[in-house]
Amino acid sequence: MTAVDLLTFGEALVSLRAPGPLAAGGALTMHLAGAESNVAIGLARLGHRVAWVGRVSEDELGEYVLRQLRAEGVGVDDVTRDADRPAGLLFLERRTADLTRVRYHRAGSAGSALRVADLRRPIGDGARVLHLTGITPALSDSAREATRWAAETGSRSGMLVSLDVNHRSRLWTREAARAVLAPLAAHASVVIASADELDLVGEPGSDESTAVAGLLARGVETVLVKLGADGARAYTRDGVRQVAAVRVTAVDTVGAGDAFTAGYLSGHLDGLDLAGRLRRAVTLGAFAVAGHGDWEGLPRRDELSLLDGHETGNTLR
Amino acid sequence: MTAVDLLTFGEALVSLRAPGPLAAGGALTMHLAGAESNVAIGLARLGHRVAWVGRVSEDELGEYVLRQLRAEGVGVDDVTRDADRPAGLLFLERRTADLTRVRYHRAGSAGSALRVADLRRPIGDGARVLHLTGITPALSDSAREATRWAAETGSRSGMLVSLDVNHRSRLWTREAARAVLAPLAAHASVVIASADELDLVGEPGSDESTAVAGLLARGVETVLVKLGADGARAYTRDGVRQVAAVRVTAVDTVGAGDAFTAGYLSGHLDGLDLAGRLRRAVTLGAFAVAGHGDWEGLPRRDELSLLDGHETGNTLR
Amino acid sequence: MTAVDLLTFGEALVSLRAPGPLAAGGALTMHLAGAESNVAIGLARLGHRVAWVGRVSEDELGEYVLRQLRAEGVGVDDVTRDADRPAGLLFLERRTADLTRVRYHRAGSAGSALRVADLRRPIGDGARVLHLTGITPALSDSAREATRWAAETGSRSGMLVSLDVNHRSRLWTREAARAVLAPLAAHASVVIASADELDLVGEPGSDESTAVAGLLARGVETVLVKLGADGARAYTRDGVRQVAAVRVTAVDTVGAGDAFTAGYLSGHLDGLDLAGRLRRAVTLGAFAVAGHGDWEGLPRRDELSLLDGHETGNTLR
Amino acid sequence: MTAVDLLTFGEALVSLRAPGPLAAGGALTMHLAGAESNVAIGLARLGHRVAWVGRVSEDELGEYVLRQLRAEGVGVDDVTRDADRPAGLLFLERRTADLTRVRYHRAGSAGSALRVADLRRPIGDGARVLHLTGITPALSDSAREATRWAAETGSRSGMLVSLDVNHRSRLWTREAARAVLAPLAAHASVVIASADELDLVGEPGSDESTAVAGLLARGVETVLVKLGADGARAYTRDGVRQVAAVRVTAVDTVGAGDAFTAGYLSGHLDGLDLAGRLRRAVTLGAFAVAGHGDWEGLPRRDELSLLDGHETGNTLR
Amino acid sequence: MTAVDLLTFGEALVSLRAPGPLAAGGALTMHLAGAESNVAIGLARLGHRVAWVGRVSEDELGEYVLRQLRAEGVGVDDVTRDADRPAGLLFLERRTADLTRVRYHRAGSAGSALRVADLRRPIGDGARVLHLTGITPALSDSAREATRWAAETGSRSGMLVSLDVNHRSRLWTREAARAVLAPLAAHASVVIASADELDLVGEPGSDESTAVAGLLARGVETVLVKLGADGARAYTRDGVRQVAAVRVTAVDTVGAGDAFTAGYLSGHLDGLDLAGRLRRAVTLGAFAVAGHGDWEGLPRRDELSLLDGHETGNTLR
Amino acid sequence: MTAVDLLTFGEALVSLRAPGPLAAGGALTMHLAGAESNVAIGLARLGHRVAWVGRVSEDELGEYVLRQLRAEGVGVDDVTRDADRPAGLLFLERRTADLTRVRYHRAGSAGSALRVADLRRPIGDGARVLHLTGITPALSDSAREATRWAAETGSRSGMLVSLDVNHRSRLWTREAARAVLAPLAAHASVVIASADELDLVGEPGSDESTAVAGLLARGVETVLVKLGADGARAYTRDGVRQVAAVRVTAVDTVGAGDAFTAGYLSGHLDGLDLAGRLRRAVTLGAFAVAGHGDWEGLPRRDELSLLDGHETGNTLR
Repeated sequence: MTAVDLLTFGEALVSLRAPGPLAAGGALTMHLAGAESNVAIGLARLGHRVAWVGRVSEDELGEYVLRQLRAEGVGVDDVTRDADRPAGLLFLERRTADLTRVRYHRAGSAGSALRVADLRRPIGDGARVLHLTGITPALSDSAREATRWAAETGSRSGMLVSLDVNHRSRLWTREAARAVLAPLAAHASVVIASADELDLVGEPGSDESTAVAGLLARGVETVLVKLGADGARAYTRDGVRQVAAVRVTAVDTVGAGDAFTAGYLSGHLDGLDLAGRLRRAVTLGAFAVAGHGDWEGLPRRDELSLLDGHETGNTLR
Repeated sequence: MTAVDLLTFGEALVSLRAPGPLAAGGALTMHLAGAESNVAIGLARLGHRVAWVGRVSEDELGEYVLRQLRAEGVGVDDVTRDADRPAGLLFLERRTADLTRVRYHRAGSAGSALRVADLRRPIGDGARVLHLTGITPALSDSAREATRWAAETGSRSGMLVSLDVNHRSRLWTREAARAVLAPLAAHASVVIASADELDLVGEPGSDESTAVAGLLARGVETVLVKLGADGARAYTRDGVRQVAAVRVTAVDTVGAGDAFTAGYLSGHLDGLDLAGRLRRAVTLGAFAVAGHGDWEGLPRRDELSLLDGHETGNTLR
Repeated sequence: MTAVDLLTFGEALVSLRAPGPLAAGGALTMHLAGAESNVAIGLARLGHRVAWVGRVSEDELGEYVLRQLRAEGVGVDDVTRDADRPAGLLFLERRTADLTRVRYHRAGSAGSALRVADLRRPIGDGARVLHLTGITPALSDSAREATRWAAETGSRSGMLVSLDVNHRSRLWTREAARAVLAPLAAHASVVIASADELDLVGEPGSDESTAVAGLLARGVETVLVKLGADGARAYTRDGVRQVAAVRVTAVDTVGAGDAFTAGYLSGHLDGLDLAGRLRRAVTLGAFAVAGHGDWEGLPRRDELSLLDGHETGNTLR
Repeated sequence: MTAVDLLTFGEALVSLRAPGPLAAGGALTMHLAGAESNVAIGLARLGHRVAWVGRVSEDELGEYVLRQLRAEGVGVDDVTRDADRPAGLLFLERRTADLTRVRYHRAGSAGSALRVADLRRPIGDGARVLHLTGITPALSDSAREATRWAAETGSRSGMLVSLDVNHRSRLWTREAARAVLAPLAAHASVVIASADELDLVGEPGSDESTAVAGLLARGVETVLVKLGADGARAYTRDGVRQVAAVRVTAVDTVGAGDAFTAGYLSGHLDGLDLAGRLRRAVTLGAFAVAGHGDWEGLPRRDELSLLDGHETGNTLR
Repeated sequence: MTAVDLLTFGEALVSLRAPGPLAAGGALTMHLAGAESNVAIGLARLGHRVAWVGRVSEDELGEYVLRQLRAEGVGVDDVTRDADRPAGLLFLERRTADLTRVRYHRAGSAGSALRVADLRRPIGDGARVLHLTGITPALSDSAREATRWAAETGSRSGMLVSLDVNHRSRLWTREAARAVLAPLAAHASVVIASADELDLVGEPGSDESTAVAGLLARGVETVLVKLGADGARAYTRDGVRQVAAVRVTAVDTVGAGDAFTAGYLSGHLDGLDLAGRLRRAVTLGAFAVAGHGDWEGLPRRDELSLLDGHETGNTLR
Repeated sequence: MTAVDLLTFGEALVSLRAPGPLAAGGALTMHLAGAESNVAIGLARLGHRVAWVGRVSEDELGEYVLRQLRAEGVGVDDVTRDADRPAGLLFLERRTADLTRVRYHRAGSAGSALRVADLRRPIGDGARVLHLTGITPALSDSAREATRWAAETGSRSGMLVSLDVNHRSRLWTREAARAVLAPLAAHASVVIASADELDLVGEPGSDESTAVAGLLARGVETVLVKLGADGARAYTRDGVRQVAAVRVTAVDTVGAGDAFTAGYLSGHLDGLDLAGRLRRAVTLGAFAVAGHGDWEGLPRRDELSLLDGHETGNTLR
């Protein structure tokens, strides 16, 4: 088997979405969730060869997770089934039109038991890009060690390592996160963060330019700062480049950051220059917010231009 | 049993909501509706001890009404079951994105048969606040007499009486309403109205300041004028205070006025000053319009700050 | 305009169906209900020219009723819109797998205000068959008088009058029903009843043969006794003929009697002999119970043979 | 039978709507679709006597189409049932909040087999207005010939012929369309087009004023240019008149053009002057975009003023 | 506050029901589940005064649980909210028409952290009946100790203690269960078990009569053996009495045993003799299996006779 | 790439299922359908390595088909995307509880354009079993030629060829089918048919034993006769063996035959003897009819024993 374009790992969760307040009950819809699997799907839809690794419960919910990943063409050959632990869950309620609230049921889950052994074979098989997030090391000691090992091994074997900081305040404190993520960033070529996450891979309280300078000094080649509806900034040794977001009517912002990352890495795999990579990044971000779900609205390659120059209320027929 | 914080009475209806034009058929969803029960729920969610009184049909629809009130922690011990009359109904269709149309099926309903006897025990048990609306006296002669008796008895026994004008043009004319509501307002400490309802508790055609002055002269302590997306004005003998609405994306404005009232009365029960009461009033109003349903989106006490400083598309995780 | 094949009149209701206990709330589905409109639809689906007459509320629910009747090809040109009265409603809950419970909200409804004037034009236009039920005269004094007038006028002008007893115990007592229905039956050529309804068109407590003999003696030509899963018996002056029910898996028995009646009258209009009319009657009854809804599963003419010789679990492809 | 107010013909499709990306599967809802049937329904709802003609498959989907048209009071007496061809279908997916994507399955459909013979009787019976669109001639050779024949025959027999250009780029090229539509327009009294469709009934590449001048020169009395959210312009020999759109929250723009046309023609039938016709046109357009579906939200006559002077979030009770 | 009729405690779960295989995804519906809360609801519906005690998570899912219990009129004043542990969950899939599969996510849940301190106040307040199940002691060490303490304290203070064995093989082995449940049974007046659970409160491998004899010898007054569709047997010192099940079409057997228990205890509270208690037990069991859900179909007092003498396909109107 | 366990080819359709009569409209659910893909999924769920080949439309519906196949772990690497033809569709309505009606929209579909070139590579790669059905050759001339070529090439290269007769009377006549299928059967080792399909692979009108004898004489090793609820008979040169169906409550018989075939071939791939293959065949058939959908209820390997010895209404917890 030849090396895949992108390898990523983490916890894939079963997300149960309520259309309104959860306390009211009613019907929940099942979805696949997880920052890394979102990125994997984003790239697979664009035709890249992608593999996802992790531990998945050996029951119907685990089966559900695998069905979704396979449906999207993400390789799952190296997934470990865990017979002893349940699937990680996430309850997501649309509390108001503007506010989504998430509750995790992932303590002790199959996914959080990730360990180095689960990654040996796929990392050994190689990949052009190895993508990791700051969520996985927050899940357990063994997952933290696995992430560290993967970053180190991956970068040493010449993979491009990308790290999305993705701070989850319900999983750990900023201090705990910084102690782990800052060293991790040193293995990465690409670091992706929102503006308020930058100091988690730098000195506490450092401002954007200081934090970025520190990262570049430690060998990171590109630092991407996600700015939501304001687009993004990309820092390299050559300076900074800002890109505006693609204007769309936003209906669901969950997953936008992962889509942005997927777009950027797709541009990298296609050999685009920085401007091209950023353009694809914000394009995927726009697709993510313009449709419901974390990843369901992401484009296939032939759809990449679908949002170009269209106004509100367009019909293609 | 000790006196409750708030006692209210009126008709609780079964609301049947259609997502689009009713004539097209399809699925209707059942909801509890009623201005007074909306206020009761708003206060109960914030932890106040609340009781609702009224006549409820002795069939499955009546059972539904009671299940909803009990679920929300509203006391229903003094509700009268009426074996001879059907539940009052309300058909609510979303005619366009901007226009909701309501049709009542409440003539001859259990709720409209409310009478003084139904209120004797709960009014006798006492309450810190007695809340009434201008809907109940429009339902029947006996309901009108019951409302008058309650206002008089309540104010005489030292309860704070609040009156929400709540004009329903499909139930009676402005003239008929004025003849009943203006005398009623004289028993109230708090009168709540939208700008175009003010002259129903004053002289016909009087402008806002004249109408308010008349009310204050007749002993009303606070006059609240609801201004929708523009917030509200509160008049006392000390002058007028305006408060802006909390900015949210509005998806359903039904129930906003009742939420505003619930917030104001909750602030009163908590001993807040006028500014604090108004702030809570507009906060509850914002929750009401930011979610679907008349009361389903109202906050629990720990959620009161949820809308503070959040922008569009926020996710709490 | 030429005379229609069948004219019928009564109250068409909006039926709100709950899949389980109504007190639990949830989604209700809207349906057209009414014994006479069920019969009208059954005949219209088979290609007969049919008109239905009645009073329909001048609002969205009335519009719904007309949309359904028109969709099914039932003529509604002589329907009276009533601006002052609401639509009659019916709540139908599937209380258990075996037990359906119905609650009417039809007191004071538009449909119950039917009067002679509403029927003058359509009865004047004529019809081959005039179908009436024992429900309409239970609705109001004016509806009772209208039914009596129609039966008398129809039979006098040479229409075949058919009467389905259809006793509704929630609308009137057996005694009240008998006082009205027994005289009415004397105008009918065809009387349809379940076994326990026969004495409502005869002497109180009379057994089947006595009741039937009395009807035949008063000029009724055919008496049809519906036996549910056991089929039906038809009495004429030539004797009695029994027909078995068509075997199907029953999922919803509501509307089966009306389907039976429609089948019988369709056979009459097609000039079939008694055996053929009964066969069509039980065939339509079988369609009614084999599908959900009061009339939704009734066959078009090309589907009449669909249940012939098929076993459980058949697939036509 | 007296002549109807409006006669129109074309293909009525079964539209299968997905709430999100179609590739994700899930539930599709069935709707009636078709520019001509949309116009027919728009006029029937306003009380005009309307007939629609076309070929409809002789199966359940064809039955569905007829049930919808009949429900709306559109005459279907002259519809031809086609036993050999399937129903035309249309898959409509809400790809993003702003972008609707349509896929046709209509090659070889019953509707596309329309021919002159199907139109002889209804055109012979006459109508005040004959409405045609630029979609029908794109469906097949026989449909093109039928459209040409109808336009010619209709205009010769004194019907007001209206033509909505309605270019469908998935059915034919602009060149192919122009070759057919430009001659067709010469039979029309009213030509309706969006700004970028005008040169399909004129010279290639001609600007708005040139194209309009050409049409007026060839005998067209009124040219209506639809401008979406910007309203419309009407050109006659007396000059040009612009009308603004009615401001509403738009939720679904599909069908807006057909609604506009229906409103204009309704105004014509009611004898309104140009300003009145345009006002009704934009009113119906507003109803169309303010509700879901192609035609489901169109107003009955008593609802025409429903959007007047209402702000966001109004409730009528 | 006076003592309630029945007090029970345990874990109330949020049940997520899938209509088909869970791995296929789709919509899940939320329900309240838990053997003890099922019994509590069964009794509350019949008008008994009932309280339920347990630990409930301090989040939206916990709120959901409380809303359901309150809706049903079950007292929850002594419930402990647990801010540190999540709600216990249960995934229930209808794997085939005949086979329901349950997966628990309850390890470490709020409910499983039940302890003696949580029960002190309610047990101190007293109750006529204290109901416990063999599920609670399987949840955790502290829950086991709480159950033991409650049984001992309750029986010592003169409450009638009832114990439903309710073996859950996914929570513990038969051996582990027997070691705890056999001593527990010695405190009970009523022991309820299915035939294959009897030896969990007696000697391993003992047959029904031996096991029952042992229980009666240790002071149990009544042993109820649930036989599903075959009804039940009741053993007392006076001998054995068998009762047949009420015949209904079964659509969902989950909750049948709890309904049986509720019916028996209701009969006890009403002072019925053994025959009357058993009749009510099988009546509630029949309601449970004849409707969907664990408890949703249970009867109110006026519905107790609803299943009497009705055949398939009955309609009450 | 090593050879797969099973290779199959044909048309995979998008099935649109209506819960009741299609003419009534409402919501349709999307499913993957196709006899060959059903068999492929049945085997993939049991862990066999399976590939499916065919032509799939290059649009969203084609994407849907591939997502479903990939989700189930069926190899689709050799699928041809067809940019010029639409997806084949199938409308499936539950006409009555016992009767399912299917309408195809597959004339001119992508799938029906299958040709030899589409099969060269996968057939060249080899497989232990090549499965074909009598549906594919009915789709088009090129599909017929492709089927013939595959059967011949497969058997010549030593694959076990299995043929399921699967007569579709809406696609071709029995005569046309026989002319193609009888020669095809001569290439097969396993022939599967229902009793009334046997003479389509033998002489017209021949009875079961004659038809089977003819097949065995022409080199077929095993003839499987599917008997629905009565199980199946297997003929080999050693004689005949009958197997009973596994008793379950049947809710949807569509797909039962394909499940049977998948079970048999799975047994073959696992090296089971005839009794073991038949037992697995009827087990999969039972899973198919016990759940909704064509293949959705099929078991994973660890679920094969799930139906053993269970009675109605079992719950696993």
